[in-house]
Amino acid sequence: MMLTRRSTLFAGAAAGLATGFGAAQAAAPAPTPKQAPAFYRMKVGDIELTAISDGYGVYPKIDGFVRNAPNEAVSAALAEHFEPSDRVVIPFTTLVVNTGGKLVLLDTGNGDMAAPTSGIWMDNFRAAGFTPEAVDTVVISHLHGDHINGLRLKDGTQRFPQAEIKMPALEAAFWMNEENKAKATTPMMQGNFANAERVFKPIMKNVTLYDWDKEVAPGVIAVGAPGHTPGHTMFAIASGSTHFMAVTDITNNTALFVRNPDWAVMFDTDPDVARATRHRVLDMVSAEKMHVGFYHAPFPANGFITRDGASRYNLVPAAWTMPL
Amino acid sequence: MMLTRRSTLFAGAAAGLATGFGAAQAAAPAPTPKQAPAFYRMKVGDIELTAISDGYGVYPKIDGFVRNAPNEAVSAALAEHFEPSDRVVIPFTTLVVNTGGKLVLLDTGNGDMAAPTSGIWMDNFRAAGFTPEAVDTVVISHLHGDHINGLRLKDGTQRFPQAEIKMPALEAAFWMNEENKAKATTPMMQGNFANAERVFKPIMKNVTLYDWDKEVAPGVIAVGAPGHTPGHTMFAIASGSTHFMAVTDITNNTALFVRNPDWAVMFDTDPDVARATRHRVLDMVSAEKMHVGFYHAPFPANGFITRDGASRYNLVPAAWTMPL
Repeated sequence: MMLTRRSTLFAGAAAGLATGFGAAQAAAPAPTPKQAPAFYRMKVGDIELTAISDGYGVYPKIDGFVRNAPNEAVSAALAEHFEPSDRVVIPFTTLVVNTGGKLVLLDTGNGDMAAPTSGIWMDNFRAAGFTPEAVDTVVISHLHGDHINGLRLKDGTQRFPQAEIKMPALEAAFWMNEENKAKATTPMMQGNFANAERVFKPIMKNVTLYDWDKEVAPGVIAVGAPGHTPGHTMFAIASGSTHFMAVTDITNNTALFVRNPDWAVMFDTDPDVARATRHRVLDMVSAEKMHVGFYHAPFPANGFITRDGASRYNLVPAAWTMPL
Repeated sequence: MMLTRRSTLFAGAAAGLATGFGAAQAAAPAPTPKQAPAFYRMKVGDIELTAISDGYGVYPKIDGFVRNAPNEAVSAALAEHFEPSDRVVIPFTTLVVNTGGKLVLLDTGNGDMAAPTSGIWMDNFRAAGFTPEAVDTVVISHLHGDHINGLRLKDGTQRFPQAEIKMPALEAAFWMNEENKAKATTPMMQGNFANAERVFKPIMKNVTLYDWDKEVAPGVIAVGAPGHTPGHTMFAIASGSTHFMAVTDITNNTALFVRNPDWAVMFDTDPDVARATRHRVLDMVSAEKMHVGFYHAPFPANGFITRDGASRYNLVPAAWTMPL
């Protein structure tokens, strides 16, 4: 009986609780089982940001997910955040930037290449009042499948037919390169090269390459954050004196890598560079108390970073704001 | 320039950031300015819980909100949670329990007696797929206006015409009592008595009184949590081995009172009893790692309590779950 040990702390409630928790029986399943649509508006000055969830993926065990930490420590970090500790849940959250008369996507989610628990991006995007035809620009942060597969479906359909597509020049140079592809030795890297080619090779002539430190859309600056991939990019979004930093994949699951920035996720192409980037960014956004968005934090995947000692951090989720 | 101090940490990005953050201009306002509907499903075994937001109220200053803490400490606690530190934001979140074929409300929100930033309960309730006519039972936790005003509107309309209404016997004894009303000396307490009378006097013959430690609905046990008001009630919800504790107003704004359970909010009728209750409950739910819901936490107002030293706690928001 779960409450028995503590139930004497409730004046007079011990008997009722001890009985009630065991005896309670629910009969009918819910008639409205669906979750609320997972979009969320934020204001950055005059810019409207909308977080759009694409659900989550599950890495079905602990072993192998973090390259340089014991499984027990990884499980414990997840349990500290009340997440399942025998597997890793990886949420996906993209951003829509509505600015300067332009509708801009930052990454596209998993499209139809998704785990059964993801692939809900388009439903949430439409629930937010958007249509794919209205998208002016798609800005890709890096060429991993969970960020690009929403652009072109398995059958080749382009989901944002009117949109200019922008890609980091460094990502194109790395992934759309036959020599690099031939050098890939792990199934994961081979798969990443093959998937990048699948999505982009037929449309590469229409893709605009972008460099870091430049505007990729009105109010949106591409900021280099290498290591996760060679051209992995964050987005600094600003309007007037209000700022937002979309830090993309400087961490995977935030319960693991914000708290333990020295840990390296299995997906990083250069773990040492990624670690240095992670430290730099977490140091910066915590010192500046910046509003940040993560691709792999629990929806709505935004908040603030606080520093806890020399090299540990916490993510403080932002309070849900409504109505605007 | 906000980022200047740290911008050298971004390899090569300093110039771009320094220019971009200042120069970015957004032109068009958002075409779809509304926030997502603020309802949120949770599963407790076979029971479906739905958190329904009624927005928030604002206490427009710091002074007076906490009876026994310096204003500076209160502001600092809010700032630590990245909430506004010159005022107190008070979110309202009710719960719908769908269990045993019964649709049960735990409290009703502000109805039409609300601050302009609240009063959105019915919209969110309908967005969640519910209708007021389908409500079988309304269980009131205590008789403060933000919990009961949704039951009967200003013009007397009962919003849940088919519902049995249940009220703690101790709340009825305290608030629906002419002697106690006559003894009230502060405008706040006088207002609370007058409002309880407004809502309930015309319908009191149809109200069912309930005692603590008993089921008030299938799977829902009323648990005494006195001090905030004499009959202030929490709800222990259970199905099979899964538990959820709706702690109602054992804290107001969670950034203040979870972290500082010795602090007393201005609304408590007996601050000492409320403080003892708060400590007991926070100790219990943290030791048992229980999933908890607060009435006055940021939407969706659920998570877990961790203990930090002898008498400080933290609220770890639960990761958003989807789809069920």
